[in-house]
Amino acid sequence: MKILTLGSWIMICAVVPGAARAELNLMPQPAQITAGQGKLKIDQSFRLALTGYHEPRLERACARFVSRLEHLTGIPLSAEPPAVGSEATLEIATTAGSSPVQKLGEDESYRLEVTSTRARLTAANPLGVLRGMETFLQLVEADKDGFSAPAIDINDRPRFAWRGTMLDVSRHWMPVPVVERTIDAMAAVKLNVFHWHLSDDQGFRVESKRFPKLLELGSDGHFYTQQQIHEVIEYARDRGIRVVPEFDMPGHATALLVAHPELASLPGPYSIERHWGIFDPAIDPTRDETYQFLDGLIAEMTSLFPDEYFHIGGDEVNGKQWGANPRIQSFMRQHGVKDNAGLQAHFNSRLQPIVTGHGKKVIGWDEVLAPGLPKDIVVQSWRGQKSLAEAARLGYMGILSAGYYLDLMHSASYHYSVDPLEGETAGLNDSERSRILGGEAAMWAEYVTPENVEMRIWPRNAAIAERLWSPQTVKDTASMYRRLAAVRRELDRLDLGISASHELMLERLAGNHPVGPLSALSDVVEPVKEYAREEARLYTSFTPLNRLVDATRPESDVAREFALLVDGMLTGTTDRQNCRAEVRHWLEHWRANHALLEPSLQGSFLLEELTPLSKDLSALGTVGLEALDYFESGRKPPGAWIQQQLAFFEAAGKPRAELLLMIVPSVQKLVEAAAGR
Amino acid sequence: MKILTLGSWIMICAVVPGAARAELNLMPQPAQITAGQGKLKIDQSFRLALTGYHEPRLERACARFVSRLEHLTGIPLSAEPPAVGSEATLEIATTAGSSPVQKLGEDESYRLEVTSTRARLTAANPLGVLRGMETFLQLVEADKDGFSAPAIDINDRPRFAWRGTMLDVSRHWMPVPVVERTIDAMAAVKLNVFHWHLSDDQGFRVESKRFPKLLELGSDGHFYTQQQIHEVIEYARDRGIRVVPEFDMPGHATALLVAHPELASLPGPYSIERHWGIFDPAIDPTRDETYQFLDGLIAEMTSLFPDEYFHIGGDEVNGKQWGANPRIQSFMRQHGVKDNAGLQAHFNSRLQPIVTGHGKKVIGWDEVLAPGLPKDIVVQSWRGQKSLAEAARLGYMGILSAGYYLDLMHSASYHYSVDPLEGETAGLNDSERSRILGGEAAMWAEYVTPENVEMRIWPRNAAIAERLWSPQTVKDTASMYRRLAAVRRELDRLDLGISASHELMLERLAGNHPVGPLSALSDVVEPVKEYAREEARLYTSFTPLNRLVDATRPESDVAREFALLVDGMLTGTTDRQNCRAEVRHWLEHWRANHALLEPSLQGSFLLEELTPLSKDLSALGTVGLEALDYFESGRKPPGAWIQQQLAFFEAAGKPRAELLLMIVPSVQKLVEAAAGR
Repeated sequence: MKILTLGSWIMICAVVPGAARAELNLMPQPAQITAGQGKLKIDQSFRLALTGYHEPRLERACARFVSRLEHLTGIPLSAEPPAVGSEATLEIATTAGSSPVQKLGEDESYRLEVTSTRARLTAANPLGVLRGMETFLQLVEADKDGFSAPAIDINDRPRFAWRGTMLDVSRHWMPVPVVERTIDAMAAVKLNVFHWHLSDDQGFRVESKRFPKLLELGSDGHFYTQQQIHEVIEYARDRGIRVVPEFDMPGHATALLVAHPELASLPGPYSIERHWGIFDPAIDPTRDETYQFLDGLIAEMTSLFPDEYFHIGGDEVNGKQWGANPRIQSFMRQHGVKDNAGLQAHFNSRLQPIVTGHGKKVIGWDEVLAPGLPKDIVVQSWRGQKSLAEAARLGYMGILSAGYYLDLMHSASYHYSVDPLEGETAGLNDSERSRILGGEAAMWAEYVTPENVEMRIWPRNAAIAERLWSPQTVKDTASMYRRLAAVRRELDRLDLGISASHELMLERLAGNHPVGPLSALSDVVEPVKEYAREEARLYTSFTPLNRLVDATRPESDVAREFALLVDGMLTGTTDRQNCRAEVRHWLEHWRANHALLEPSLQGSFLLEELTPLSKDLSALGTVGLEALDYFESGRKPPGAWIQQQLAFFEAAGKPRAELLLMIVPSVQKLVEAAAGR
Repeated sequence: MKILTLGSWIMICAVVPGAARAELNLMPQPAQITAGQGKLKIDQSFRLALTGYHEPRLERACARFVSRLEHLTGIPLSAEPPAVGSEATLEIATTAGSSPVQKLGEDESYRLEVTSTRARLTAANPLGVLRGMETFLQLVEADKDGFSAPAIDINDRPRFAWRGTMLDVSRHWMPVPVVERTIDAMAAVKLNVFHWHLSDDQGFRVESKRFPKLLELGSDGHFYTQQQIHEVIEYARDRGIRVVPEFDMPGHATALLVAHPELASLPGPYSIERHWGIFDPAIDPTRDETYQFLDGLIAEMTSLFPDEYFHIGGDEVNGKQWGANPRIQSFMRQHGVKDNAGLQAHFNSRLQPIVTGHGKKVIGWDEVLAPGLPKDIVVQSWRGQKSLAEAARLGYMGILSAGYYLDLMHSASYHYSVDPLEGETAGLNDSERSRILGGEAAMWAEYVTPENVEMRIWPRNAAIAERLWSPQTVKDTASMYRRLAAVRRELDRLDLGISASHELMLERLAGNHPVGPLSALSDVVEPVKEYAREEARLYTSFTPLNRLVDATRPESDVAREFALLVDGMLTGTTDRQNCRAEVRHWLEHWRANHALLEPSLQGSFLLEELTPLSKDLSALGTVGLEALDYFESGRKPPGAWIQQQLAFFEAAGKPRAELLLMIVPSVQKLVEAAAGR
């Protein structure tokens, strides 16, 4: 039978973000907001007018805007300009075009004034218009009078110029629609750099006409044609997003070496890597032929990607092949190269002028940084603020990615707390600080497929987008989560299928069984964090990603909000009673769940592994209810009972099936409260 | 806070289709099944081989098949043929191509043999292959050993040759992706005719190069280009589906007359109709110029649509314009035409040779039938089996659409019960019966948009598909509903977004409020039936379809299964206790719901109208629980209480907000049981 949705007792307890709230659903928070009086009605009479500078991109943006406003309201709207003599509901005015190829640091500011009779969006160029349109759409809500946008005056601009998202399409292939939807979602939260990780050990993903073997041998048939690359770049430009391609070298280049083993540091042959990790194959940095080849490849690739930056990767070279090749060792001695880092610096010092020669600036991961490189390179830090601060002190620009790795399954609040200008970078002087350009979320693709990658990027990435756009002082986590829920709805409307993918994957797992009990378990677990999946089992490119760990959301909203309920019940000044009632309801729900889920668990090879988790969830319900009874009665539980539960929590908190039960700490808190601790 | 999914106590009560079941998820049921021993494992080693006749269409079908099998299992699969010397998991063998343009009555039979080591699909031509592939995909399920298809021998062929679905794209515009997804879903349940209702009072939807005014003036800019038409036809052909275009005339042609008022029976001018219903404008059947124009239009349109049938509509001419035009009246007198039906027969007698002249056969609605027409026309009956039987006796072929109107919001079981060869057609002799070619579901588009049309067609249409494909003896409604749930999951995997659209629309309604309580209400209501929405308020093309009546599913699974629970509790031989526990659980759920939903209802103009329904739902919960208490205690309720409840049921069963509360009869049954009736 279908899921019975027992909605939200939560509304009666005030500690959890519920229905009533004063703030708007804007994400990222604008730099400056002044509330006005009244609201602008959005109905069938809505008309959009584009005044001042015109271009086809703006017209397309207007058409998309009207279509999204229709989807948001369910009201059929006209994309026609207002009739002669009548005013537009929303006037969009801009004075000039932006750069033909979007540049780092271009003006993205806008002003959005909404009164009770009309709205006006002004910006110096189309980039600001695109940002302001997203803000307007986020303002629109229904109330008892209809759909409307509140009267408001917003002056907005980004805090950082480089606000990116990296997508790895090498470890698991991501077809064009996934890329385009990622770009749609990025635009919705005002991100502006799509960093396309196009080559790695597991695949080279761009058609090369000059070196066709790269695709024939290095792609498994999964690559973007040059035509598709052009289309994606146009698609991104339409949304105010730069596309920075990455070709990782001299390490993480196995796929390239499959096609061109003559470039490798040892003879080969090579085959496409099917495992995850750091592998030995590396480009030979000591031969001139290497640079001749790279000059040819980079010539072709830079002609495809118009952005001024070109990412050369440069991370995680283990140097084993270099150490094992006597000719390379002899080269190092001859040239006074002390170690592998030195050899990589040599490689970069030869690569950099090639890239520059094709009109591009270099960006690379931490390891590319070596003394002597020109100051216009950008360092992308996966190591943290420390290496970013060091680079800035040396005069290099940098962006932060450490703390923004979406594949590590951290919470939105964790990412939200990471700031490119806090920690070691906080002590920089003004000119050094100005070299911190922003940050980039990264989605490495070991454990994601086209099916679940969007649900893994979003909505958490919106928290990072806010960190990079909004003033540094915007830090209220509760507010962030409240608005994140609205962003998730917005992204679902953009057909990202964040929710739909999750549900389809759960339905696949449940098969002919009702999905409800499985969904209840899924709602309180999270995938293990950091690199714990690597250790759990041997994964390869061929491993099906169809288990609960792949279907479940990266972050458990239920566990987070249950923790708030428990806190509200134990420490809240108001509403303790209501919170306690809700805590009880959830605990009863969990206690009952295993009996309901058990038939599915027994019937499916995909679900069997969940049995211990499911049992523990029900046991947590039971223990929590016992604790609640003690708590309510005022009787103290026996010491043995307490000890038994603490041992149970220890076990129940451990990963099983690569999943963590996220309600353990809250139930433990109940037991400790009952014990009077 | 998010929805708490309290799954499915239902599993403990055996009366409702639950987890355990012996039958397969096949829909439509094959003509003949012989179960085998064991099962064929589906894992990464799966390989498909195409032997015998080859064509690009089959290769594309194989690629889609592998991709869907991947999606179904989450296992990355190879689309490569098996290595030399090794056997395919599934061998597909066919001997010859099908007709270049798919014909009515072409062989669609196939045989699918699955053993524990391999599977073999054989068919006379690619049409049978396409049907058999769908069957294979429906066989695949997970159990404790992995994914597999059961060993089986299926010999299958359709009962009827014409199994269609009509989509009205005139009243609300349906863009190409909606059309293509409709075709995908049709193929999944072995339907074979896409009937495209392309013109009506509200729009003419095909690009005409010969008569460009049709689009400039008659389409609001919403039409298919000829290129798109070609693509859709190819798309459908790839899936074994014929495309029959309909151009409705001489009535339902206002949009055409906007562009060409010279063809009308009164001077005009005309404007695109924005309302729903039957309107006066009609083509003038008395002038030669009419037929010259139609010859030109039909020449162009028949050249676009290769199918041998061409649908001329012909329904619902009210004749008012004919009556009001003295010249037409005089024509009728001169030619001895007695009435409007006679005049329409005259029109058809002139139109038919035009269509035939362009190499097509005519299909039209009931009204086209008039003595003297050639016998190769097909009558599509919206009136019922009676008119179908009459046509068959006169020697005409016919298909049934009465009983299959999906827009009337009947249940799947209602449609399932309608058979083209029952009722008045049952008495036909064999040769008359052979003229009943099949049937067609119809989705008229007054109350659907691209947003909700798929959720209105599916999954109910699969029940009609089974009626038209499977043996007449396949009639078990409980089995149908159980398998329909699997089809719904399959269609969701095809990205139809049946579930996703429903949820997005509910989320739009709920806004910042939790969607759970609204979803609980939605789950027990259905839109009003038949043409009741017409009477409820004045709808036009511009009316937003964004209320709960538009978002809710056509059929309440919860109400249907709650009724089974109540029956199980009252009359079941086993499991009465469990059923009663579940009944109680649902009633408690509903009783609590209004308090949770109320804040959203008050906050939104879209939801306010639901207040009486929501209150009544909670009241039904309360009354049901009281009845349950009486029932369990054995005490008889006072007569006044009974009378009061019966009056309440009378009121609660009435439509509000164009919605019906579907649990009223079951709660009434509880009260009657408590009263000892």
